[in-house]
Amino acid sequence: MQSRKDLANAIRALSMDGVQKANSGHPGAPMGMADIAEVLWNDFLNHNPSNPDWFNRDRFVLSNGHGSMLIYSLLHLSGYDLSLDDLKQFRQLHSRTAGHPEYGYAPGIETTTGPLGQGIANAVGFAAAEKILAANFNKPDFDVVDHYTYCFLGDGCMMEGISHEVCSLAGTLKLGKLVAFYDDNGISIDGEVEGWFTDDTPARFRAYGWQVIENVDGHDPEAVAAAIKLAQRDSEKPTLICCKTVIGFGSPNKAGSHDCHGAPLGADEIKASKEALGWKYGDFEVPADIYSGWNALDAGAEKETAWNALFEAYAAQYPAEAAELKRRAAGDLPANWEQVSTEMLAKFNAEANKVASRKASQNVLDVIGAELPELLGGSADLAPSNLTFHKSSKSITGEDAAGNYLHYGVREFGMSAIMNGLALHGGFIPYGATFLVFMEYARNALRMAALMKKRLVHVYTHDSIGLGEDGPTHQPVEQVANMRNTPNLDTWRPCDEFETGVAWKSGVEKTDGPTALVLSRQGLAPMARSAEQQAAAAKGGYVLVDSDSAPEIILIATGSEVELAVNAAATLKEQGKAVRVVSMPCTSVFDAQDAAYKESVLPAAVTKRVAVEALHVDFWWKYVGLGGKVVGMTTYGESAPAGDLFKHFNITAEAVVEAATSL
Amino acid sequence: MQSRKDLANAIRALSMDGVQKANSGHPGAPMGMADIAEVLWNDFLNHNPSNPDWFNRDRFVLSNGHGSMLIYSLLHLSGYDLSLDDLKQFRQLHSRTAGHPEYGYAPGIETTTGPLGQGIANAVGFAAAEKILAANFNKPDFDVVDHYTYCFLGDGCMMEGISHEVCSLAGTLKLGKLVAFYDDNGISIDGEVEGWFTDDTPARFRAYGWQVIENVDGHDPEAVAAAIKLAQRDSEKPTLICCKTVIGFGSPNKAGSHDCHGAPLGADEIKASKEALGWKYGDFEVPADIYSGWNALDAGAEKETAWNALFEAYAAQYPAEAAELKRRAAGDLPANWEQVSTEMLAKFNAEANKVASRKASQNVLDVIGAELPELLGGSADLAPSNLTFHKSSKSITGEDAAGNYLHYGVREFGMSAIMNGLALHGGFIPYGATFLVFMEYARNALRMAALMKKRLVHVYTHDSIGLGEDGPTHQPVEQVANMRNTPNLDTWRPCDEFETGVAWKSGVEKTDGPTALVLSRQGLAPMARSAEQQAAAAKGGYVLVDSDSAPEIILIATGSEVELAVNAAATLKEQGKAVRVVSMPCTSVFDAQDAAYKESVLPAAVTKRVAVEALHVDFWWKYVGLGGKVVGMTTYGESAPAGDLFKHFNITAEAVVEAATSL
Repeated sequence: MQSRKDLANAIRALSMDGVQKANSGHPGAPMGMADIAEVLWNDFLNHNPSNPDWFNRDRFVLSNGHGSMLIYSLLHLSGYDLSLDDLKQFRQLHSRTAGHPEYGYAPGIETTTGPLGQGIANAVGFAAAEKILAANFNKPDFDVVDHYTYCFLGDGCMMEGISHEVCSLAGTLKLGKLVAFYDDNGISIDGEVEGWFTDDTPARFRAYGWQVIENVDGHDPEAVAAAIKLAQRDSEKPTLICCKTVIGFGSPNKAGSHDCHGAPLGADEIKASKEALGWKYGDFEVPADIYSGWNALDAGAEKETAWNALFEAYAAQYPAEAAELKRRAAGDLPANWEQVSTEMLAKFNAEANKVASRKASQNVLDVIGAELPELLGGSADLAPSNLTFHKSSKSITGEDAAGNYLHYGVREFGMSAIMNGLALHGGFIPYGATFLVFMEYARNALRMAALMKKRLVHVYTHDSIGLGEDGPTHQPVEQVANMRNTPNLDTWRPCDEFETGVAWKSGVEKTDGPTALVLSRQGLAPMARSAEQQAAAAKGGYVLVDSDSAPEIILIATGSEVELAVNAAATLKEQGKAVRVVSMPCTSVFDAQDAAYKESVLPAAVTKRVAVEALHVDFWWKYVGLGGKVVGMTTYGESAPAGDLFKHFNITAEAVVEAATSL
Repeated sequence: MQSRKDLANAIRALSMDGVQKANSGHPGAPMGMADIAEVLWNDFLNHNPSNPDWFNRDRFVLSNGHGSMLIYSLLHLSGYDLSLDDLKQFRQLHSRTAGHPEYGYAPGIETTTGPLGQGIANAVGFAAAEKILAANFNKPDFDVVDHYTYCFLGDGCMMEGISHEVCSLAGTLKLGKLVAFYDDNGISIDGEVEGWFTDDTPARFRAYGWQVIENVDGHDPEAVAAAIKLAQRDSEKPTLICCKTVIGFGSPNKAGSHDCHGAPLGADEIKASKEALGWKYGDFEVPADIYSGWNALDAGAEKETAWNALFEAYAAQYPAEAAELKRRAAGDLPANWEQVSTEMLAKFNAEANKVASRKASQNVLDVIGAELPELLGGSADLAPSNLTFHKSSKSITGEDAAGNYLHYGVREFGMSAIMNGLALHGGFIPYGATFLVFMEYARNALRMAALMKKRLVHVYTHDSIGLGEDGPTHQPVEQVANMRNTPNLDTWRPCDEFETGVAWKSGVEKTDGPTALVLSRQGLAPMARSAEQQAAAAKGGYVLVDSDSAPEIILIATGSEVELAVNAAATLKEQGKAVRVVSMPCTSVFDAQDAAYKESVLPAAVTKRVAVEALHVDFWWKYVGLGGKVVGMTTYGESAPAGDLFKHFNITAEAVVEAATSL
């Protein structure tokens, strides 16, 4: 059996070698955190390398994701399906060992990290997921959901604002099974952090209601182990273990300096480092006794087997709960989903209510929320405006997690990244809300959900100048185009209650990425649809009103502007024009249809096209072409009642008619 | 003379009336903070209502900008050019009293606020500006730059992550003349904040190195005054004054509840409130003695007169410094600017160096940084990667502010909002940097700069899959389209050192909005340009390589893809095609040219068009039309060496040739 130092040095050696071979990467953090990782993974982490998807595993998040060779080394050494060859392919095309840990590329990567601060936010989501599921499913003597969430984070994560949002909320929610390790090495890219980061971080986290264990020597395994035990003893407070470490530990000439942060050490320095560490092996060479010291396969299998036995006993006593937990963990929808959602749509179509689409969304939630306990709602302190609290909503508090609604507070970015963690954990379809323009505060978390192809639903209300008096800071212009250009994200801007239902249905059913719902503050007139049109709405774009003969003009609209387009078409028809109106609630879903369908909606021969949307015009040239026109926004909004604004910015049925006749 | 309570009640009455008449707005915060505001404005604030631009005035920021009737009331009562009629037009089209305080709409509005947390960030920028200017310009006995920055903020601002970023940095920078008032009323939109916000905020701010004055009764003028005196006594630490207040103070039935946060109180409740407050006057009625208690015209004029005398004496003794400070305060460029910048461009064109555009940017800064002391640089902890530290850069620290470079730490959003504050203060052209993809962390601050039309320059490097191994989290795809759709923002993606110089020159000279520079990590080949082409580059789009006869195909490219387009054009020419290459570094500047110029570059008759850019394709349909093609990205990137990625994603000269020949 090798010493703990030897085991940790395997991480250091592999990290140095991996970065050197790629001639690119970050050796400093893995070398600095190797001892902490060794203690955590070998003595505490409950996981099963043979089954990275074991539902009750502890979650491990590397928030300082640039230190990716740390997690690749850990996965390889402990027995995951990640070979030495994989490590040698670090940062190469088609390899599983990407520059930053990418969810879905290698087994055991719980979340994609790299954008700083978001890993700890995901970890808060994992811990919240565990606590909420436990509160909803565990029974006396049956703690079937019972795991820790561990997170490594560095100075960069600590400086990012999102760390404030999510750690503050973690304290309020009393996420006692969240344990974070702060890699306090005093170095960031510009150099020694004391020039720009002088927080008393322990005091800051105590102010959030965390347990803080200070001044732990991150290179002393006994101290680290003692701290973790202390962390586990407090079941109410999340714990921050502040570890003093040396970046690039072991490198005689670069340790403690930012020189080892983001570049290979170089062959000579690697040689010197291995000598200094007493590591006598070749490049990418790990001796058998080191492997055996790390191997977690047997222990992991035992742990999962024990849990399986527990779960079987639980299932015997609580069959309904067990089946439900299995369903939710698998991400399957309930058996009655298709019926419930179809009936809801038929009802909306028949009732033809005039409501704001934000209100329509709440009406949807009143229906589906009762059927989908996995819908975990929330809003960044705008529940009464976003209308996200539905008839079956129950608030979650620090004292009582047996609910399905999180009051995220005024924390848009934190909310969105926590939602990513909830979705990654499994057992939930998270939805969260804010005003559309404040999507921007959370923008990169939305992108991360799309990059990771996770199912969740963002509810963005107050979607244009139609919000009125709050003015330009609150009126979106360029935001929806940005979302539509985001790969894997479906952005819906429904025109009435029926389309809002279609959008929600799509978001719940889409398993390969997030969905954003762009909803109005103001009331929207219901549109009439045939059965065929009702079905076509799910295709993202469809003919809502057609001309009697072949169309000579096509009007394309979304959301609150569909009514304008329909009214403009009526006027144009009176003038003898053959006009078609296409409702296009989701461009990405429309784009994904087959060519024949798209041609049937937007025939290439019809070049007289006008798009109307109270958002930035530039997105729509894609559909109307150089010869078309777009009625929309090119500037910021103003503060005034909504009706005045639509006239002021000339987004009216008359403007659409004028644009169409000018072609 | 009226009592302090009567003076404060004038704010309450006007706020209630303004919101009621508009039938929209937020009465709760103005009513809650009225007493604090009364003390600050009547006893402490150095300002001159007759000259809102007096350079040495104290700055006042309402970070909880929804309470806009508070600041409108203060401006009106103290004597600014803002009439009762203006107040009656609250939230109406073309009024000066927009729903949120909009910079440039009413005198005395120092910054646009509403997006929570950004006001306190702007305030940190104001305070930093004061400290840096003072360190660079003040002389013994001549404190010509010497003012406080006061900021009101509420629970929402406290929850936002950006408050962490900027308050942490304010502590490190020892901004002792920043005084923030925390409106601790315990209420946010979802209800009582204790369900989602349980921070020990005083402890948190002490951890940032602030002086914290706790438990101040925000309705006790003496307590508020004592706290402000204490704040002023500490010249090293920024001060947070934690004021316990009652939201909607004075409203018998709605005070202390979120019901008064964002809706009119209603006529009956206003009547009851005025009775409870002892306010006996009609709607929008303020008696003469209340006006006289508020009037700051004479005192303000005296203060400015005294400062003018000080400045004249300073100018007599230090004429060069005085002239320079006046120039910088006016925002004028030095007399030699045109010569310096023109010579720089000529040199770049002649030398034709192959450099990454991030390196070209540093080369520009080495030249212009020596000539423009108002250039206040910085990076969010990426100075060695963004290459923003130039030959004349000197770091600013808490101890020594006589520099021109801020190490912002890993705080992209905070940096960007602080830059807005620096630009609003005057005396600086701020520039700040991060990786392009992390623009998203700061996105709304960039929008706020554009909305306020302030001059500053964002340096965004690592601008495509060309950054290579760091992978999809770090590789921009949809970001630049988003910036191009942002009104008032110019986004430049230069193709070589010369165009980088043109872009910087444009950013320094543009006085009606911000500029973003989108720069490569990898080396870019220099392009040859005639004198005419050199001049045309400033037009944002121009013919870089033309066909001998009239073009039949146009290739449009930016940045690193210009070289691909030029190579593709050479191949196509060999095939006998008449091909034009248009370099389009800045689409918004190109769009603003006259129709004749645009037609000369992109003749309508030429419909065979291919755009190439290693970013999302959808932006380019605007220029190539339905019949054109775009070579670019539609998915996220991958982790691999840059050369492999361009091949993998088929962004090559061959792909451009293929696209062009397929038309």
